[in-house]
Amino acid sequence: MIRAVICGASGYTGAELLRILAPASHVEVAALASFKTAGEAIADIFPHLRHLSFKIPVKLRPLVPDTMHELLDEGDVFFLALPHSASQQAVEYFLSRGKKVIDLSADFRLRDPMVYERWYKTRHEFPDTLKRAVYGLPELYREKIKDAALIANPGCYPTTAILALYPALKHQIVSTEHIVIDSKSGVSGAGRKSDVVYSFCEIADGFKAYGVAAHRHTPEIDQELSAIAGSPINVTFTPHLLPVARGMLSAVYAPLKDRITLGDIHSIYVSAYQDEPFVDVLPHGKYPDIRNVRGTNMCQLGLAVSENGTLIIISAIDNLVKGASGQAVQNMNIMFDLDETTGLDLLPVVP
Amino acid sequence: MIRAVICGASGYTGAELLRILAPASHVEVAALASFKTAGEAIADIFPHLRHLSFKIPVKLRPLVPDTMHELLDEGDVFFLALPHSASQQAVEYFLSRGKKVIDLSADFRLRDPMVYERWYKTRHEFPDTLKRAVYGLPELYREKIKDAALIANPGCYPTTAILALYPALKHQIVSTEHIVIDSKSGVSGAGRKSDVVYSFCEIADGFKAYGVAAHRHTPEIDQELSAIAGSPINVTFTPHLLPVARGMLSAVYAPLKDRITLGDIHSIYVSAYQDEPFVDVLPHGKYPDIRNVRGTNMCQLGLAVSENGTLIIISAIDNLVKGASGQAVQNMNIMFDLDETTGLDLLPVVP
Amino acid sequence: MIRAVICGASGYTGAELLRILAPASHVEVAALASFKTAGEAIADIFPHLRHLSFKIPVKLRPLVPDTMHELLDEGDVFFLALPHSASQQAVEYFLSRGKKVIDLSADFRLRDPMVYERWYKTRHEFPDTLKRAVYGLPELYREKIKDAALIANPGCYPTTAILALYPALKHQIVSTEHIVIDSKSGVSGAGRKSDVVYSFCEIADGFKAYGVAAHRHTPEIDQELSAIAGSPINVTFTPHLLPVARGMLSAVYAPLKDRITLGDIHSIYVSAYQDEPFVDVLPHGKYPDIRNVRGTNMCQLGLAVSENGTLIIISAIDNLVKGASGQAVQNMNIMFDLDETTGLDLLPVVP
Amino acid sequence: MIRAVICGASGYTGAELLRILAPASHVEVAALASFKTAGEAIADIFPHLRHLSFKIPVKLRPLVPDTMHELLDEGDVFFLALPHSASQQAVEYFLSRGKKVIDLSADFRLRDPMVYERWYKTRHEFPDTLKRAVYGLPELYREKIKDAALIANPGCYPTTAILALYPALKHQIVSTEHIVIDSKSGVSGAGRKSDVVYSFCEIADGFKAYGVAAHRHTPEIDQELSAIAGSPINVTFTPHLLPVARGMLSAVYAPLKDRITLGDIHSIYVSAYQDEPFVDVLPHGKYPDIRNVRGTNMCQLGLAVSENGTLIIISAIDNLVKGASGQAVQNMNIMFDLDETTGLDLLPVVP
Repeated sequence: MIRAVICGASGYTGAELLRILAPASHVEVAALASFKTAGEAIADIFPHLRHLSFKIPVKLRPLVPDTMHELLDEGDVFFLALPHSASQQAVEYFLSRGKKVIDLSADFRLRDPMVYERWYKTRHEFPDTLKRAVYGLPELYREKIKDAALIANPGCYPTTAILALYPALKHQIVSTEHIVIDSKSGVSGAGRKSDVVYSFCEIADGFKAYGVAAHRHTPEIDQELSAIAGSPINVTFTPHLLPVARGMLSAVYAPLKDRITLGDIHSIYVSAYQDEPFVDVLPHGKYPDIRNVRGTNMCQLGLAVSENGTLIIISAIDNLVKGASGQAVQNMNIMFDLDETTGLDLLPVVP
Repeated sequence: MIRAVICGASGYTGAELLRILAPASHVEVAALASFKTAGEAIADIFPHLRHLSFKIPVKLRPLVPDTMHELLDEGDVFFLALPHSASQQAVEYFLSRGKKVIDLSADFRLRDPMVYERWYKTRHEFPDTLKRAVYGLPELYREKIKDAALIANPGCYPTTAILALYPALKHQIVSTEHIVIDSKSGVSGAGRKSDVVYSFCEIADGFKAYGVAAHRHTPEIDQELSAIAGSPINVTFTPHLLPVARGMLSAVYAPLKDRITLGDIHSIYVSAYQDEPFVDVLPHGKYPDIRNVRGTNMCQLGLAVSENGTLIIISAIDNLVKGASGQAVQNMNIMFDLDETTGLDLLPVVP
Repeated sequence: MIRAVICGASGYTGAELLRILAPASHVEVAALASFKTAGEAIADIFPHLRHLSFKIPVKLRPLVPDTMHELLDEGDVFFLALPHSASQQAVEYFLSRGKKVIDLSADFRLRDPMVYERWYKTRHEFPDTLKRAVYGLPELYREKIKDAALIANPGCYPTTAILALYPALKHQIVSTEHIVIDSKSGVSGAGRKSDVVYSFCEIADGFKAYGVAAHRHTPEIDQELSAIAGSPINVTFTPHLLPVARGMLSAVYAPLKDRITLGDIHSIYVSAYQDEPFVDVLPHGKYPDIRNVRGTNMCQLGLAVSENGTLIIISAIDNLVKGASGQAVQNMNIMFDLDETTGLDLLPVVP
Repeated sequence: MIRAVICGASGYTGAELLRILAPASHVEVAALASFKTAGEAIADIFPHLRHLSFKIPVKLRPLVPDTMHELLDEGDVFFLALPHSASQQAVEYFLSRGKKVIDLSADFRLRDPMVYERWYKTRHEFPDTLKRAVYGLPELYREKIKDAALIANPGCYPTTAILALYPALKHQIVSTEHIVIDSKSGVSGAGRKSDVVYSFCEIADGFKAYGVAAHRHTPEIDQELSAIAGSPINVTFTPHLLPVARGMLSAVYAPLKDRITLGDIHSIYVSAYQDEPFVDVLPHGKYPDIRNVRGTNMCQLGLAVSENGTLIIISAIDNLVKGASGQAVQNMNIMFDLDETTGLDLLPVVP
């Protein structure tokens, strides 16, 4: 049994880790911790977790220096579902004491600390630790993840974008210029917040772009796409807010370099992902719907080519699962040399 | 392994049976059948079932006399998720040939065929078979279900209402007059239909009562409450349509007969349901939300007493699970002498 | 031109007053004021008000003692869309200086200051002013409203309940005991708030009761129903939260005293409201949907009788219009001796 | 008074024409007609229209050859809110008899009948009439509309795309290659339909692309953008379905040709639309939300430039208003030499 500690358990990604890990037979949720809600019962924060017939800790414990060592003793792996910048210290603490750490924040995703500081407006305190972090996208970095002690779990938008473009860039069938990523996210992507702009009455019946040409996931996307292509890529990235709680869909546009049929492109994608348990290249003419991946760790991809020779890839995930907590568990499975799908046989609840 | 055949697999309760049974280790989904959609692939009707890593039949088979015997041979238990009146013949066919049958329609719920004919505007062809049917609400009829060959799986509204009133009526703390049941259901209760009145644009942002004082679940509620009370009960029942896909919540009102504290009432309820795995009496001052039971087989109950001495019970279920397919599986487990919760450890996906 | 000042213009009822008054040819919106958001531009708080081609003040002015006299000079009528208890002082200030005041808070609705203190947990500072307040439900108190200087604009739940029961109680066809009011409200009823419990992710796909047997609108409903009946009435009242931004629907249940046909009851209702521009008794067998009154000042009523002799009245309004700002404008029209419908020819936007 | 006849009044664009025209003081809605729902009362189809205190016809009349002449006599202008291809004959009938016709279908939008036949899979019966049609986008063709007898009212997607790109193409600041239009529409764009794919349970909580690289609005967008640019343009166009009833937002991407600041681009846009009553270029850093234009005839535009030199224009309308019926009324006003905004002072209902 792997003993898992979840730090930041009162947020949505924390709750999602509980939903996935509590029934898993290979993991024991050993402790829950939180900065702000320490002392509260998890069932008061998330009444839906009353239904857990599985044993989980009743209360949230404090995530403070005084008592960190107690948490340390109880876990083999630490999931940090904390806000950006708040995660740095906790990662350092657990990692330096020999624990495996999966960090769901953005703190260890950007390899260059200068880029981190520019986009997150805060210094990176542990540039050396940054070098040890592995970007936790199994479809690209499975081998490195196996040996990693620190996983920088990918952002939700980057997960959709990178999985959408990986085969095309690797096979060099698209230009690295004029790439457009038009993404739409459910509201849970913003976290569990007391903020009037995320109140029901301000979101319902609405739809809008935000962070246009300025979203923090842009450098993360650029970093990973550039690594695949072997040359610098600067994408145009526009996120939007959907009036749904969860789900994420990106439409990715890249000009094709040469004449290639949609059939051949489809074959490239099917081939690239044929052994991947969580990437599903849909048949010709089919496109994903966020409903169909809701609650699951799947990424669904649909392909098309426009009349003017642009490759269109539609990519859908559940932002809280493949875009966060499910991918974190997938990484844990790899780190502990388990079957990657263990505990991740999740079915969508439709309708 | 129990071999299960699902008839009516292209509807929402059929899909829900698949969601529950496919991953269950004690059941093999042996065949899917349908009146109208025979020949189609289940993944074309329900693209979210592409994600099933579990083995299920690929195509729907016809539910017609010519080939019924083939289905017969493949199943130990037959789930009939068919429209009212269409179910009668199929029930008779499988039952008379020695199979266990769980009928999710209303065809075998009303003990009196005259009442059935009055409310469903169609003759009951098999009044003798009707006598063999057991009303499949485990909390009331567990012992009978064990030995039953035919289960009349309860309606969703009756499930909320009966579980809400059972302890109060059994302990005779409420009057049998002036009982009001005000219920609200998600749209999936109407089934998977091509009807403009259930189209997104006609439902979104709306809320309305329907079938006021005329809904077909009224005689079913009256029948079961009368049986508990030992005297005839006629309730006032008003269903409403919520702008959500699934979930059902009933507010049930019954005048208290004598002075009794809320604390004592709470004890009666806790005591009545203490051994029930799927009924959860919430702590004082807590009330259910359909979100918290979504996708699960739970019924949550909350209690209050108004200033004028009326007992208020708030009762919430997922209409497709405890209100249909989950309860059907619970019944199957009982019929096959299994732990009642097998395969029903379902967690809500929140948010 | 009536000069109107809106205090509390950064809330939803404030914005709704603007939506109604800005295009009205008989009113000039002379000033907007606010406790917390003074200095902000109204179009920053409510970007949809950029579209107003009508002249309205650009900025919110402070609602503070130092500058209240400036507001005083600019208005003939003061709409106070302020939180409960915060309204008391402002009402007193404007009223004592000879202005007409329409108070949308609960501060002057309950005639007995003791009842107010019990339910609102705060002292009433102006019991003498309370005596001057007229409960602003035109269908009951039109004549008093004509001469009133201070209107206590009714709560949204009470508006649905009182209009539903008024004809039945006045004609004494129902018992005053065992009255049940089961109400469902859109989320805007809670105001424009930074509170995680009203965040999109906590409300979407949900439905729940709240304030069961304990909601502050109960004494207001009791007070007005008792006045109609001429004897004390204590109702059982349960509010619920719908996953929609606006709209309110109540199902009201009252045992019929004697044998009376639904046809006769319908005639009583039609006759009671035949001259009312904003109460619409629907034809036999039709029931209201909140969509059909959304954005309008209408109250729609549908009638039924259950088998056990209970009268069921379904009552629907827009909680922000007939339940708040629209009714306030209707009251203003009566106070200024104008046609009651002036500026209130609002059409629902469907779908 | 202009006498208007609405053909196809039982659809959503028909209802929307009624919502706009009924209260308008310059128009009399003289008759309503329909293919399929003739004889029905409009208030039975659209219960929300019970609230109309304005005089409108009670029943829908048949749209059949036998009685067309009766309709002919009653109208000065004919709004045809009919399905594609069904509109051709009706347009010809009314137009050839000297009436002004505003066609909301796609039948007369594409100048080349061959292109029409290729995309709509049906012959164009009246290629000569096609030559008389004016594309009814006032911001581009106001002068021609003044003298037109037949208006081809633009599609909703093209309206967002063309208004977004018009200033940039006219000023030649963007490349005509690699233009991407990523659009999202509310469900009402599909019309009022009995089709399970548009049922509430299939749409709620979902989001998907459809008609990828194959939507019929593509040639309409290409035609108009090419006309502006003076050279052939082939865009990449992807529509998506939002889980809301109404509203449309497009993100439009076009590579900038030369170095130009966002400030200068903003000035070009403000200047291009400064006299347009229904196009609102938002301030720097602000982006539209479909909520803020819901129910109105406004198009809101927001601008940004990505790091790689791509101009991003976010464009939002209400698909049923500026994308259909509101624009139709705007065209009517121009044709009858009235102030263009007459009857179109519509305010959004928010929240």
